[in-house]
Amino acid sequence: MRWNVISCADWQLYVIVDRAVLGTRDPVEVASAAIRGGADVIQLRDKTGSDRRQLETARRLRPLTRAAGIPLIINDRPDLAFASDADGVHLGQDDLPIQEARRLLGPDKLIGRSTHSLDQALAAHAEGANYIGVGPIFPTPTKPNYKSVGTELIKEVAPRIQLPFVCIGGIEPSNLDQVIDAGAHCIAVVRAICASPTPESTTRALKRILTLTQKSRSTATHNL
Amino acid sequence: MRWNVISCADWQLYVIVDRAVLGTRDPVEVASAAIRGGADVIQLRDKTGSDRRQLETARRLRPLTRAAGIPLIINDRPDLAFASDADGVHLGQDDLPIQEARRLLGPDKLIGRSTHSLDQALAAHAEGANYIGVGPIFPTPTKPNYKSVGTELIKEVAPRIQLPFVCIGGIEPSNLDQVIDAGAHCIAVVRAICASPTPESTTRALKRILTLTQKSRSTATHNL
Repeated sequence: MRWNVISCADWQLYVIVDRAVLGTRDPVEVASAAIRGGADVIQLRDKTGSDRRQLETARRLRPLTRAAGIPLIINDRPDLAFASDADGVHLGQDDLPIQEARRLLGPDKLIGRSTHSLDQALAAHAEGANYIGVGPIFPTPTKPNYKSVGTELIKEVAPRIQLPFVCIGGIEPSNLDQVIDAGAHCIAVVRAICASPTPESTTRALKRILTLTQKSRSTATHNL
Repeated sequence: MRWNVISCADWQLYVIVDRAVLGTRDPVEVASAAIRGGADVIQLRDKTGSDRRQLETARRLRPLTRAAGIPLIINDRPDLAFASDADGVHLGQDDLPIQEARRLLGPDKLIGRSTHSLDQALAAHAEGANYIGVGPIFPTPTKPNYKSVGTELIKEVAPRIQLPFVCIGGIEPSNLDQVIDAGAHCIAVVRAICASPTPESTTRALKRILTLTQKSRSTATHNL
Protein backbone atom coordinates (compact mmCIF):
# COMPACT_ATOMS: atom_id res chain seq x y z
CA MET A 1 0.00 0.00 0.00
CA ARG A 2 1.10 3.47 -0.82
CA TRP A 3 -0.37 4.88 2.40
CA ASN A 4 0.08 3.92 5.91
CA VAL A 5 -3.43 2.62 6.25
CA ILE A 6 -4.84 -0.51 7.85
CA SER A 7 -4.95 -3.45 5.42
CA CYS A 8 -8.32 -4.84 4.25
CA ALA A 9 -7.47 -8.14 5.91
CA ASP A 10 -7.39 -6.43 9.31
CA TRP A 11 -10.66 -4.57 9.00
CA GLN A 12 -13.29 -5.42 11.57
CA LEU A 13 -15.75 -2.56 11.30
CA TYR A 14 -16.56 -0.87 7.99
CA VAL A 15 -18.77 2.18 8.45
CA ILE A 16 -20.82 3.48 5.54
CA VAL A 17 -21.81 7.11 5.88
CA ASP A 18 -24.97 7.28 3.80
CA ARG A 19 -26.60 10.62 3.01
CA ALA A 20 -29.99 8.98 2.47
CA VAL A 21 -29.98 7.68 6.05
CA LEU A 22 -28.34 10.76 7.58
CA GLY A 23 -30.91 13.24 6.24
CA THR A 24 -29.74 16.68 7.31
CA ARG A 25 -26.96 15.46 9.60
CA ASP A 26 -23.44 16.29 8.45
CA PRO A 27 -21.69 13.18 7.08
CA VAL A 28 -18.32 14.56 8.15
CA GLU A 29 -19.43 14.86 11.78
CA VAL A 30 -20.88 11.35 11.82
CA ALA A 31 -17.76 9.93 10.14
CA SER A 32 -15.62 11.76 12.65
CA ALA A 33 -17.60 10.22 15.53
CA ALA A 34 -17.31 6.76 13.95
CA ILE A 35 -13.54 7.22 13.58
CA ARG A 36 -13.23 8.18 17.25
CA GLY A 37 -15.31 5.11 18.08
CA GLY A 38 -12.90 2.82 16.21
CA ALA A 39 -14.15 2.44 12.62
CA ASP A 40 -11.51 0.70 10.50
CA VAL A 41 -12.70 2.11 7.19
CA ILE A 42 -15.15 4.82 6.11
CA GLN A 43 -17.22 4.65 2.95
CA LEU A 44 -19.03 7.71 1.62
CA ARG A 45 -22.33 6.83 -0.05
CA ASP A 46 -24.44 9.57 -1.62
CA LYS A 47 -26.71 8.34 -4.36
CA THR A 48 -28.82 11.50 -4.60
CA GLY A 49 -26.53 14.50 -4.22
CA SER A 50 -24.70 16.31 -6.99
CA ASP A 51 -21.19 15.22 -7.92
CA ARG A 52 -19.92 18.57 -6.72
CA ARG A 53 -21.41 18.02 -3.24
CA GLN A 54 -19.99 14.50 -3.06
CA LEU A 55 -16.56 15.73 -4.05
CA GLU A 56 -16.68 18.47 -1.42
CA THR A 57 -17.73 15.99 1.26
CA ALA A 58 -15.03 13.51 0.26
CA ARG A 59 -12.44 16.27 0.39
CA ARG A 60 -13.56 17.20 3.90
CA LEU A 61 -13.39 13.54 4.98
CA ARG A 62 -9.94 12.99 3.47
CA PRO A 63 -7.79 14.61 6.21
CA LEU A 64 -9.82 12.87 8.94
CA THR A 65 -9.37 9.35 7.60
CA ARG A 66 -5.74 10.01 6.76
CA ALA A 67 -4.99 11.28 10.26
CA ALA A 68 -6.63 8.14 11.64
CA GLY A 69 -4.66 5.88 9.27
CA ILE A 70 -7.82 4.32 7.85
CA PRO A 71 -9.00 4.21 4.24
CA LEU A 72 -11.70 6.35 2.68
CA ILE A 73 -13.77 4.52 0.09
CA ILE A 74 -16.22 6.19 -2.32
CA ASN A 75 -19.39 4.35 -3.27
CA ASP A 76 -20.06 3.56 -6.94
CA ARG A 77 -17.94 6.26 -8.58
CA PRO A 78 -14.31 5.78 -9.65
CA ASP A 79 -14.17 9.36 -10.95
CA LEU A 80 -15.12 10.81 -7.59
CA ALA A 81 -12.60 8.53 -5.87
CA PHE A 82 -9.98 9.78 -8.32
CA ALA A 83 -10.90 13.45 -7.95
CA SER A 84 -10.97 13.32 -4.13
CA ASP A 85 -7.83 11.17 -3.91
CA ALA A 86 -9.76 8.67 -1.80
CA ASP A 87 -8.18 5.28 -1.11
CA GLY A 88 -10.62 3.41 -3.25
CA VAL A 89 -14.06 2.78 -4.66
CA HIS A 90 -16.81 0.32 -3.86
CA LEU A 91 -18.70 -0.99 -6.89
CA GLY A 92 -22.09 -2.68 -7.08
CA GLN A 93 -22.82 -5.41 -9.59
CA ASP A 94 -24.31 -2.85 -12.02
CA ASP A 95 -21.49 -0.33 -11.71
CA LEU A 96 -18.39 -0.16 -13.88
CA PRO A 97 -16.42 -3.39 -14.40
CA ILE A 98 -13.54 -3.83 -11.96
CA GLN A 99 -11.03 -3.80 -14.83
CA GLU A 100 -12.17 -0.32 -15.91
CA ALA A 101 -12.08 1.06 -12.38
CA ARG A 102 -8.57 -0.38 -12.02
CA ARG A 103 -7.44 1.17 -15.28
CA LEU A 104 -8.76 4.51 -14.07
CA LEU A 105 -7.51 4.35 -10.47
CA GLY A 106 -4.24 2.48 -10.89
CA PRO A 107 -2.78 -0.42 -8.92
CA ASP A 108 -2.54 1.27 -5.52
CA LYS A 109 -6.20 2.06 -4.93
CA LEU A 110 -8.66 -0.32 -3.29
CA ILE A 111 -11.53 -1.70 -5.32
CA GLY A 112 -14.38 -3.42 -3.53
CA ARG A 113 -17.32 -5.17 -5.15
CA SER A 114 -20.73 -6.06 -3.70
CA THR A 115 -21.54 -9.74 -4.18
CA HIS A 116 -24.76 -11.62 -3.53
CA SER A 117 -23.71 -15.19 -4.36
CA LEU A 118 -20.63 -17.41 -4.30
CA ASP A 119 -20.31 -17.10 -8.09
CA GLN A 120 -20.25 -13.32 -7.89
CA ALA A 121 -17.69 -13.49 -5.07
CA LEU A 122 -15.38 -15.75 -7.08
CA ALA A 123 -15.82 -13.55 -10.17
CA ALA A 124 -14.92 -10.39 -8.23
CA HIS A 125 -11.79 -12.10 -6.94
CA ALA A 126 -10.83 -13.19 -10.45
CA GLU A 127 -11.43 -9.67 -11.78
CA GLY A 128 -9.02 -8.14 -9.30
CA ALA A 129 -11.13 -6.78 -6.45
CA ASN A 130 -9.17 -6.02 -3.27
CA TYR A 131 -12.10 -7.01 -1.08
CA ILE A 132 -15.73 -7.97 -1.53
CA GLY A 133 -18.98 -7.20 0.21
CA VAL A 134 -21.20 -10.18 1.00
CA GLY A 135 -24.88 -9.63 1.61
CA PRO A 136 -27.43 -8.49 2.38
CA ILE A 137 -27.13 -10.96 5.26
CA PHE A 138 -30.39 -9.88 6.90
CA PRO A 139 -33.29 -7.92 5.40
CA THR A 140 -32.52 -4.20 5.46
CA PRO A 141 -34.53 -1.09 4.58
CA THR A 142 -31.35 0.36 3.01
CA LYS A 143 -31.62 -2.18 0.14
CA PRO A 144 -35.33 -3.01 -0.10
CA ASN A 145 -34.99 -4.61 -3.54
CA TYR A 146 -32.45 -7.22 -2.50
CA LYS A 147 -33.34 -10.63 -1.13
CA SER A 148 -31.33 -11.34 1.99
CA VAL A 149 -28.82 -14.16 1.60
CA GLY A 150 -28.64 -15.17 5.26
CA THR A 151 -25.52 -16.37 7.06
CA GLU A 152 -25.45 -19.36 4.69
CA LEU A 153 -23.59 -17.34 2.08
CA ILE A 154 -20.90 -16.44 4.63
CA LYS A 155 -20.41 -20.16 5.33
CA GLU A 156 -20.09 -20.81 1.60
CA VAL A 157 -17.75 -17.91 0.88
CA ALA A 158 -15.47 -18.03 3.95
CA PRO A 159 -13.65 -21.27 3.12
CA ARG A 160 -13.66 -20.72 -0.66
CA ILE A 161 -12.27 -17.22 -1.11
CA GLN A 162 -8.79 -15.90 -0.38
CA LEU A 163 -9.89 -12.28 -0.30
CA PRO A 164 -11.02 -10.13 2.61
CA PHE A 165 -14.80 -10.00 2.72
CA VAL A 166 -17.12 -7.61 4.49
CA CYS A 167 -20.53 -8.85 5.58
CA ILE A 168 -23.31 -6.33 5.21
CA GLY A 169 -27.06 -5.96 5.52
CA GLY A 170 -29.13 -5.48 8.67
CA ILE A 171 -26.29 -6.37 11.03
CA GLU A 172 -26.66 -5.00 14.56
CA PRO A 173 -25.45 -5.90 18.07
CA SER A 174 -28.28 -8.42 18.52
CA ASN A 175 -27.37 -10.58 15.50
CA LEU A 176 -23.64 -9.95 15.27
CA ASP A 177 -22.68 -13.28 16.88
CA GLN A 178 -24.49 -15.23 14.12
CA VAL A 179 -22.41 -13.39 11.51
CA ILE A 180 -19.13 -14.01 13.33
CA ASP A 181 -20.04 -17.63 13.99
CA ALA A 182 -20.66 -18.13 10.28
CA GLY A 183 -17.07 -17.09 9.56
CA ALA A 184 -17.07 -13.30 9.19
CA HIS A 185 -14.11 -11.22 10.25
CA CYS A 186 -15.43 -7.83 9.20
CA ILE A 187 -18.90 -6.34 9.15
CA ALA A 188 -20.24 -3.23 7.48
CA VAL A 189 -22.95 -1.07 8.97
CA VAL A 190 -25.04 1.79 7.64
CA ARG A 191 -28.12 2.40 9.76
CA ALA A 192 -26.58 1.10 12.98
CA ILE A 193 -24.30 4.16 12.92
CA CYS A 194 -26.01 6.69 10.64
CA ALA A 195 -29.36 6.41 12.42
CA SER A 196 -27.80 6.32 15.88
CA PRO A 197 -28.20 9.42 18.06
CA THR A 198 -24.78 8.58 19.52
CA PRO A 199 -22.65 7.34 16.61
CA GLU A 200 -19.37 7.40 18.54
CA SER A 201 -20.48 5.22 21.41
CA THR A 202 -22.46 2.93 19.10
CA THR A 203 -19.35 2.42 16.96
CA ARG A 204 -17.28 1.76 20.09
CA ALA A 205 -19.82 -0.77 21.36
CA LEU A 206 -19.95 -2.61 18.00
CA LYS A 207 -16.17 -2.69 17.76
CA ARG A 208 -15.92 -4.04 21.31
CA ILE A 209 -18.46 -6.80 20.62
CA LEU A 210 -16.60 -7.70 17.41
CA THR A 211 -13.25 -7.89 19.16
CA LEU A 212 -14.58 -9.87 22.12
CA THR A 213 -16.58 -12.29 19.97
CA GLN A 214 -13.61 -12.92 17.71
CA LYS A 215 -11.27 -13.32 20.68
CA SER A 216 -13.51 -15.89 22.37
CA ARG A 217 -13.94 -17.69 19.04
CA SER A 218 -10.21 -17.74 18.42
CA THR A 219 -9.56 -18.95 22.01
CA ALA A 220 -12.16 -21.66 21.53
CA THR A 221 -10.39 -22.74 18.33
CA HIS A 222 -6.99 -22.72 20.00
CA ASN A 223 -8.36 -24.83 22.86
CA LEU A 224 -9.67 -27.52 20.55
CA MET B 1 -6.99 16.32 -31.84
CA ARG B 2 -5.82 12.76 -31.59
CA TRP B 3 -8.61 11.50 -33.82
CA ASN B 4 -9.67 12.53 -37.19
CA VAL B 5 -12.88 14.06 -35.93
CA ILE B 6 -14.61 17.30 -36.77
CA SER B 7 -13.44 20.21 -34.60
CA CYS B 8 -15.86 21.79 -32.09
CA ALA B 9 -15.61 25.06 -34.01
CA ASP B 10 -17.14 23.40 -37.07
CA TRP B 11 -20.08 21.76 -35.31
CA GLN B 12 -23.50 22.83 -36.47
CA LEU B 13 -25.78 20.15 -35.10
CA TYR B 14 -25.17 18.45 -31.74
CA VAL B 15 -27.55 15.57 -31.14
CA ILE B 16 -28.18 14.36 -27.61
CA VAL B 17 -29.46 10.81 -27.41
CA ASP B 18 -31.39 10.82 -24.15
CA ARG B 19 -32.73 7.58 -22.67
CA ALA B 20 -35.40 9.44 -20.71
CA VAL B 21 -36.89 10.79 -23.96
CA LEU B 22 -36.30 7.63 -25.99
CA GLY B 23 -38.18 5.33 -23.63
CA THR B 24 -37.84 1.81 -25.02
CA ARG B 25 -36.26 2.87 -28.34
CA ASP B 26 -32.68 1.80 -28.85
CA PRO B 27 -30.30 4.76 -28.43
CA VAL B 28 -27.85 3.18 -30.87
CA GLU B 29 -30.47 3.01 -33.62
CA VAL B 30 -31.54 6.60 -33.08
CA ALA B 31 -27.92 7.78 -32.97
CA SER B 32 -27.23 5.87 -36.14
CA ALA B 33 -30.16 7.58 -37.87
CA ALA B 34 -28.96 10.98 -36.63
CA ILE B 35 -25.48 10.27 -37.96
CA ARG B 36 -26.87 9.36 -41.38
CA GLY B 37 -28.89 12.58 -41.24
CA GLY B 38 -25.77 14.66 -40.68
CA ALA B 39 -25.28 15.07 -36.91
CA ASP B 40 -21.84 16.59 -36.20
CA VAL B 41 -21.55 15.20 -32.69
CA ILE B 42 -23.45 12.65 -30.60
CA GLN B 43 -23.91 12.90 -26.86
CA LEU B 44 -25.14 9.95 -24.81
CA ARG B 45 -27.28 11.02 -21.87
CA ASP B 46 -28.68 8.41 -19.49
CA LYS B 47 -29.40 9.76 -16.04
CA THR B 48 -31.38 6.75 -14.82
CA GLY B 49 -29.69 3.60 -16.14
CA SER B 50 -26.96 1.62 -14.44
CA ASP B 51 -23.35 2.46 -15.17
CA ARG B 52 -22.95 -0.94 -16.77
CA ARG B 53 -25.79 -0.25 -19.21
CA GLN B 54 -24.37 3.17 -20.06
CA LEU B 55 -20.95 1.69 -20.68
CA GLU B 56 -22.40 -0.99 -22.94
CA THR B 57 -24.36 1.61 -24.92
CA ALA B 58 -21.33 3.87 -25.25
CA ARG B 59 -19.25 0.95 -26.48
CA ARG B 60 -21.88 0.15 -29.11
CA LEU B 61 -21.96 3.80 -30.22
CA ARG B 62 -18.18 4.09 -30.39
CA PRO B 63 -17.57 2.39 -33.77
CA LEU B 64 -20.47 4.30 -35.37
CA THR B 65 -19.23 7.75 -34.41
CA ARG B 66 -15.66 6.83 -35.24
CA ALA B 67 -16.61 5.58 -38.69
CA ALA B 68 -18.48 8.85 -39.27
CA GLY B 69 -15.53 10.94 -38.04
CA ILE B 70 -17.62 12.69 -35.41
CA PRO B 71 -17.08 12.81 -31.65
CA LEU B 72 -18.95 10.82 -29.02
CA ILE B 73 -19.52 12.75 -25.81
CA ILE B 74 -20.77 11.22 -22.54
CA ASN B 75 -23.07 13.25 -20.32
CA ASP B 76 -21.98 14.03 -16.75
CA ARG B 77 -19.55 11.17 -16.18
CA PRO B 78 -15.81 11.39 -16.83
CA ASP B 79 -15.32 7.80 -15.65
CA LEU B 80 -17.77 6.45 -18.23
CA ALA B 81 -16.12 8.58 -20.92
CA PHE B 82 -12.78 7.12 -19.87
CA ALA B 83 -14.01 3.53 -19.73
CA SER B 84 -15.74 3.71 -23.12
CA ASP B 85 -12.90 5.67 -24.75
CA ALA B 86 -15.39 8.32 -25.82
CA ASP B 87 -14.05 11.60 -27.20
CA GLY B 88 -15.17 13.62 -24.23
CA VAL B 89 -17.58 14.46 -21.45
CA HIS B 90 -20.23 17.10 -20.99
CA LEU B 91 -20.48 18.48 -17.45
CA GLY B 92 -23.33 20.38 -15.81
CA GLN B 93 -22.68 23.13 -13.28
CA ASP B 94 -23.11 20.64 -10.40
CA ASP B 95 -20.90 17.94 -11.89
CA LEU B 96 -17.17 17.52 -11.33
CA PRO B 97 -14.97 20.59 -11.76
CA ILE B 98 -13.45 20.88 -15.24
CA GLN B 99 -9.94 20.63 -13.78
CA GLU B 100 -10.70 17.23 -12.24
CA ALA B 101 -12.28 15.91 -15.43
CA ARG B 102 -9.20 17.13 -17.33
CA ARG B 103 -6.84 15.44 -14.87
CA LEU B 104 -8.78 12.21 -15.33
CA LEU B 105 -9.25 12.35 -19.12
CA GLY B 106 -6.01 14.00 -20.20
CA PRO B 107 -5.38 16.82 -22.65
CA ASP B 108 -6.78 15.15 -25.79
CA LYS B 109 -10.38 14.63 -24.70
CA LEU B 110 -13.13 17.19 -25.11
CA ILE B 111 -14.72 18.72 -22.05
CA GLY B 112 -17.94 20.67 -22.41
CA ARG B 113 -19.75 22.59 -19.70
CA SER B 114 -23.38 23.74 -19.50
CA THR B 115 -23.64 27.44 -18.75
CA HIS B 116 -26.67 29.56 -17.96
CA SER B 117 -25.13 33.03 -17.73
CA LEU B 118 -22.25 35.05 -19.17
CA ASP B 119 -20.31 34.65 -15.92
CA GLN B 120 -20.60 30.87 -16.08
CA ALA B 121 -19.55 30.92 -19.74
CA LEU B 122 -16.44 32.98 -18.98
CA ALA B 123 -15.62 30.77 -15.97
CA ALA B 124 -15.89 27.59 -18.07
CA HIS B 125 -13.53 29.12 -20.64
CA ALA B 126 -11.04 30.08 -17.93
CA GLU B 127 -11.23 26.57 -16.43
CA GLY B 128 -10.27 24.95 -19.70
CA ALA B 129 -13.52 23.76 -21.29
CA ASN B 130 -13.22 22.91 -24.99
CA TYR B 131 -16.76 24.15 -25.67
CA ILE B 132 -19.74 25.33 -23.69
CA GLY B 133 -23.46 24.82 -23.79
CA VAL B 134 -25.59 27.97 -23.56
CA GLY B 135 -29.21 27.67 -22.49
CA PRO B 136 -31.89 26.72 -22.06
CA ILE B 137 -32.72 29.21 -24.81
CA PHE B 138 -36.43 28.39 -24.83
CA PRO B 139 -38.53 26.62 -22.17
CA THR B 140 -38.10 22.85 -22.50
CA PRO B 141 -39.72 19.87 -20.77
CA THR B 142 -36.28 18.18 -20.74
CA LYS B 143 -35.09 20.70 -18.11
CA PRO B 144 -38.25 21.77 -16.26
CA ASN B 145 -36.30 23.29 -13.33
CA TYR B 146 -34.31 25.74 -15.43
CA LYS B 147 -35.48 29.22 -16.32
CA SER B 148 -35.02 29.82 -20.03
CA VAL B 149 -32.41 32.45 -20.82
CA GLY B 150 -33.79 33.51 -24.20
CA THR B 151 -31.71 34.52 -27.20
CA GLU B 152 -30.42 37.46 -25.15
CA LEU B 153 -27.72 35.28 -23.59
CA ILE B 154 -26.51 34.24 -27.06
CA LYS B 155 -26.11 37.94 -27.95
CA GLU B 156 -24.14 38.50 -24.75
CA VAL B 157 -21.94 35.43 -25.09
CA ALA B 158 -21.23 35.44 -28.85
CA PRO B 159 -19.00 38.56 -28.97
CA ARG B 160 -17.39 37.93 -25.57
CA ILE B 161 -16.20 34.34 -25.72
CA GLN B 162 -13.48 32.81 -27.88
CA LEU B 163 -14.77 29.27 -27.43
CA PRO B 164 -17.19 27.23 -29.51
CA PHE B 165 -20.64 27.36 -27.94
CA VAL B 166 -23.65 25.16 -28.46
CA CYS B 167 -27.11 26.65 -27.97
CA ILE B 168 -29.61 24.32 -26.36
CA GLY B 169 -33.13 24.21 -24.99
CA GLY B 170 -36.41 23.96 -26.88
CA ILE B 171 -34.85 24.67 -30.28
CA GLU B 172 -36.84 23.38 -33.27
CA PRO B 173 -37.23 24.26 -36.96
CA SER B 174 -39.80 26.98 -36.14
CA ASN B 175 -37.50 29.02 -33.88
CA LEU B 176 -34.10 28.12 -35.30
CA ASP B 177 -33.71 31.41 -37.21
CA GLN B 178 -33.98 33.43 -33.97
CA VAL B 179 -31.10 31.41 -32.53
CA ILE B 180 -28.92 31.83 -35.61
CA ASP B 181 -29.78 35.53 -35.87
CA ALA B 182 -28.67 36.00 -32.26
CA GLY B 183 -25.20 34.71 -33.18
CA ALA B 184 -25.30 30.92 -32.78
CA HIS B 185 -23.26 28.67 -35.02
CA CYS B 186 -24.21 25.35 -33.44
CA ILE B 187 -27.40 24.09 -31.85
CA ALA B 188 -28.07 21.05 -29.71
CA VAL B 189 -31.30 19.10 -29.82
CA VAL B 190 -32.77 16.37 -27.65
CA ARG B 191 -36.52 15.99 -28.19
CA ALA B 192 -36.46 17.24 -31.79
CA ILE B 193 -34.61 14.02 -32.68
CA CYS B 194 -35.30 11.58 -29.84
CA ALA B 195 -39.06 12.11 -29.96
CA SER B 196 -39.18 12.17 -33.75
CA PRO B 197 -40.72 9.14 -35.49
CA THR B 198 -38.23 9.79 -38.33
CA PRO B 199 -34.95 10.81 -36.65
CA GLU B 200 -32.87 10.56 -39.83
CA SER B 201 -34.99 12.87 -41.97
CA THR B 202 -35.58 15.24 -39.05
CA THR B 203 -31.83 15.51 -38.52
CA ARG B 204 -31.30 16.07 -42.24
CA ALA B 205 -33.98 18.80 -42.30
CA LEU B 206 -32.49 20.56 -39.27
CA LYS B 207 -28.99 20.39 -40.71
CA ARG B 208 -30.24 21.80 -44.01
CA ILE B 209 -32.04 24.69 -42.32
CA LEU B 210 -28.90 25.42 -40.28
CA THR B 211 -26.66 25.42 -43.33
CA LEU B 212 -29.04 27.54 -45.43
CA THR B 213 -29.71 30.04 -42.66
CA GLN B 214 -26.02 30.44 -41.94
CA LYS B 215 -25.19 30.75 -45.63
CA SER B 216 -27.80 33.46 -46.21
CA ARG B 217 -26.61 35.26 -43.08
CA SER B 218 -22.99 35.08 -44.15
CA THR B 219 -23.91 36.31 -47.68
CA ALA B 220 -25.86 39.18 -46.14
CA THR B 221 -22.80 40.11 -44.07
CA HIS B 222 -20.50 39.91 -47.08
CA ASN B 223 -22.85 42.17 -49.06
CA LEU B 224 -22.85 44.93 -46.44
